[in-house]
Amino acid sequence: MSSKQPPQMHLGAFIQDAGHHIAAWRHPDAPVGAGMNYDHFHYLAKRAEAAKFDMIFLGDQMTFQYEEDEYLGRTSRTVNFEPLTLLSALAVSTRRIGLIATASTSYNEPFNIARKYASLDHISKGRAGWNVVTSWTGGEARNFNRQEVMEHGFRYRRAQEFVDVVKGLWDSWDSDALLDDRQQGRFFDPERLHVLNHQGEFFQVRGPLTISRSPQGHPVIVQAGSSADGQTLAARHAEVIFTAQRDLGEAQKFYREVKAQLTSLGRAPDSLKIMPGIFPVVGDSAEHAREKFEQLQELVNPEIGWAVLARHLGGVDLSGYPPDDPVPDLPPTQGNQSRQALLLAFARRENLTIRQLYWHVTGTRGHWSVFGTAVEIADVLESWFKQGAADGFNIMAPWLPGGLDEFIEQVVPVLQKRGLFRTDYSGDTLRSHLGLQQPVSRYAKSEAI
Amino acid sequence: MSSKQPPQMHLGAFIQDAGHHIAAWRHPDAPVGAGMNYDHFHYLAKRAEAAKFDMIFLGDQMTFQYEEDEYLGRTSRTVNFEPLTLLSALAVSTRRIGLIATASTSYNEPFNIARKYASLDHISKGRAGWNVVTSWTGGEARNFNRQEVMEHGFRYRRAQEFVDVVKGLWDSWDSDALLDDRQQGRFFDPERLHVLNHQGEFFQVRGPLTISRSPQGHPVIVQAGSSADGQTLAARHAEVIFTAQRDLGEAQKFYREVKAQLTSLGRAPDSLKIMPGIFPVVGDSAEHAREKFEQLQELVNPEIGWAVLARHLGGVDLSGYPPDDPVPDLPPTQGNQSRQALLLAFARRENLTIRQLYWHVTGTRGHWSVFGTAVEIADVLESWFKQGAADGFNIMAPWLPGGLDEFIEQVVPVLQKRGLFRTDYSGDTLRSHLGLQQPVSRYAKSEAI
Repeated sequence: MSSKQPPQMHLGAFIQDAGHHIAAWRHPDAPVGAGMNYDHFHYLAKRAEAAKFDMIFLGDQMTFQYEEDEYLGRTSRTVNFEPLTLLSALAVSTRRIGLIATASTSYNEPFNIARKYASLDHISKGRAGWNVVTSWTGGEARNFNRQEVMEHGFRYRRAQEFVDVVKGLWDSWDSDALLDDRQQGRFFDPERLHVLNHQGEFFQVRGPLTISRSPQGHPVIVQAGSSADGQTLAARHAEVIFTAQRDLGEAQKFYREVKAQLTSLGRAPDSLKIMPGIFPVVGDSAEHAREKFEQLQELVNPEIGWAVLARHLGGVDLSGYPPDDPVPDLPPTQGNQSRQALLLAFARRENLTIRQLYWHVTGTRGHWSVFGTAVEIADVLESWFKQGAADGFNIMAPWLPGGLDEFIEQVVPVLQKRGLFRTDYSGDTLRSHLGLQQPVSRYAKSEAI
Repeated sequence: MSSKQPPQMHLGAFIQDAGHHIAAWRHPDAPVGAGMNYDHFHYLAKRAEAAKFDMIFLGDQMTFQYEEDEYLGRTSRTVNFEPLTLLSALAVSTRRIGLIATASTSYNEPFNIARKYASLDHISKGRAGWNVVTSWTGGEARNFNRQEVMEHGFRYRRAQEFVDVVKGLWDSWDSDALLDDRQQGRFFDPERLHVLNHQGEFFQVRGPLTISRSPQGHPVIVQAGSSADGQTLAARHAEVIFTAQRDLGEAQKFYREVKAQLTSLGRAPDSLKIMPGIFPVVGDSAEHAREKFEQLQELVNPEIGWAVLARHLGGVDLSGYPPDDPVPDLPPTQGNQSRQALLLAFARRENLTIRQLYWHVTGTRGHWSVFGTAVEIADVLESWFKQGAADGFNIMAPWLPGGLDEFIEQVVPVLQKRGLFRTDYSGDTLRSHLGLQQPVSRYAKSEAI
């Protein structure tokens, strides 16, 4: 990151299915079977790359998103590509844009994950990132030999150790370990190879990895939860945080806290980029934008509303309460604690009824929505960026490809004109787009001491 | 498979690293860092597709191939792409050729494997295949929380159940389950969705899969072990067997036995294709071919010879015995039993010393080698094919890309001229190349009864 240029924001395109609105698949322009439509993803990745986005981002859940309720057949959030398989295909169709996929630490093994992301980093020539998550739905548990979700703290202890093992495996080979000395018959230098020999609470992994050090040293580590445990994981390991923030003051507080936590761990504040998700609707006026959004809302089936709300509240079902009562107090959940807490705080602040809250989450999934003209949306992004609430934004277009197209065609040029976003890539790797340093191998560090 | 045409053989290109000879990376024409060189694999896949091969095939081992001994730094068999990540990238660079990758049932979860291969089948538009293996090396065990390899029978029981679960998940959605009815807001028909609810010895998996039914119904199931347990797995589930056969009589016996086992299970004999591996060296004469091979042999470091032999004997180390003694009796192994037995039978028949056996395995890795002119090699393939020993062959070029180039340029045209191999693809899926039926869903079957 050059200190001569004014700082620029980072932009990610969070792409999924027909878009982030639950009813987007019913939009007249939605591609058929968008979640399993490779050409659709190919288009979106190329489009985001042409607009010089830092990265595309793929989420994941290893179950129907809303479990039982999904059997109603009412939404398209039921079939999706496995994200790493999709991302590897997109890696050879793109040249510059970063490629981030989600993989769970709850139902995978570190050796497998380390291999896959290191392979993707090689194939993409340095553009891979791993969004580290823990799996908090009952549906996932039941697809992986369990009756119930692992307890929240346990899941995060496992995640901490998991990431530590993966990073250790990525350090197996020094970058100059491969000699390819055909004359002497020495393919590599054993002195520059390191055996991890990890023995921990959850994992025993000997190593070394069977993948040479990847172009970025380590693929970029991303974290997307905002619970206390999630924040601790992020402060220790993450280089990007995707976070759900809806309020400037709260976002600034979150930003300050995370950066302070970094400093207390001896990490530089700019070694982690904080990127709230934003759900933008661009219109000729704020009113027009809101109308476009209302058109999507009208496509939501009521049964879906209840199911989505239950999911956002960590499995708590409110369909028994009178819909026009205020949101009641809720029991603690082993699910996604941070999301429940954020949503409840929002409902209290806005004095919402249950019905209003459920329309709220079906619309924006609890994320920050901004309706306005391109200039108005750019103003909001600029103010969050300049007032210490964000290093950039993860764009969650309500419908795809149209919503992303509109953001790219209308908002990005305004940001570029203001010098807030690049007009071309200056490097070829995800780390270079994000201004992140190449990580130092743990073995190099210990030698330097 | 049309009955009007004379039967044609199937050809696979087993591609890895700089080739199947252990010293291939020292060949002057070997690409630098071939195992992690994406352009190299891209070239090979395009080349095999231009030659109308049925498939490319990627092996896998989740550890250094020869464990401790590898630290000598003497071979290139240390770093390789994770095969599914690689194959997904190759899927978008090719259009017609089948794509088979190995994945272990020992250190994966069925839900993850089902998702990945179904995704690959969608992305490739019907060209995916899964080579089902169990993991038999100590190195792999120690990368996955174990001190020792799982016992052979246990591993295969787990594999049987694993494949059964994966196939069940692939049947989650009927091919007409997705309605995309935007008007009524019905994305899918719940009646055409099936929940697996598997409860077994090793796995409890509820399902359904989050991937719609893939173009081939199921990706093609491949099996590559020849032990009794492996044969049972193959007879029940496999549609292709890659097998190490060196002797026409033994290959015919294996072929007969497997096809009989199929019949006894109610499967049609041609629903499983038997494809021995072949390690061909093409020359202007048999003598010239052998000289080319000797040149590779001379590149082998002696330390590697012992290590490779130990691996082929299921971990038994013979380096303490006088090298010019005959091969001694060996203790039973929990490792790869079929490979040990095949190799010992060969050593007895040919009356080999330990040293001769180790040169033998470093050269051809226990596989069937054929040295000769293009016509001579075509003759051998034709005779095996016509005499009931093989439905096709998996080509294991000693060095890459040169060895595959030579086979394609010289041997394939002879086979085509004799009507033994296609001159163009007649279909677009791996199943169509292999003449395999689309599988019937287990749910469709039960309705039909």
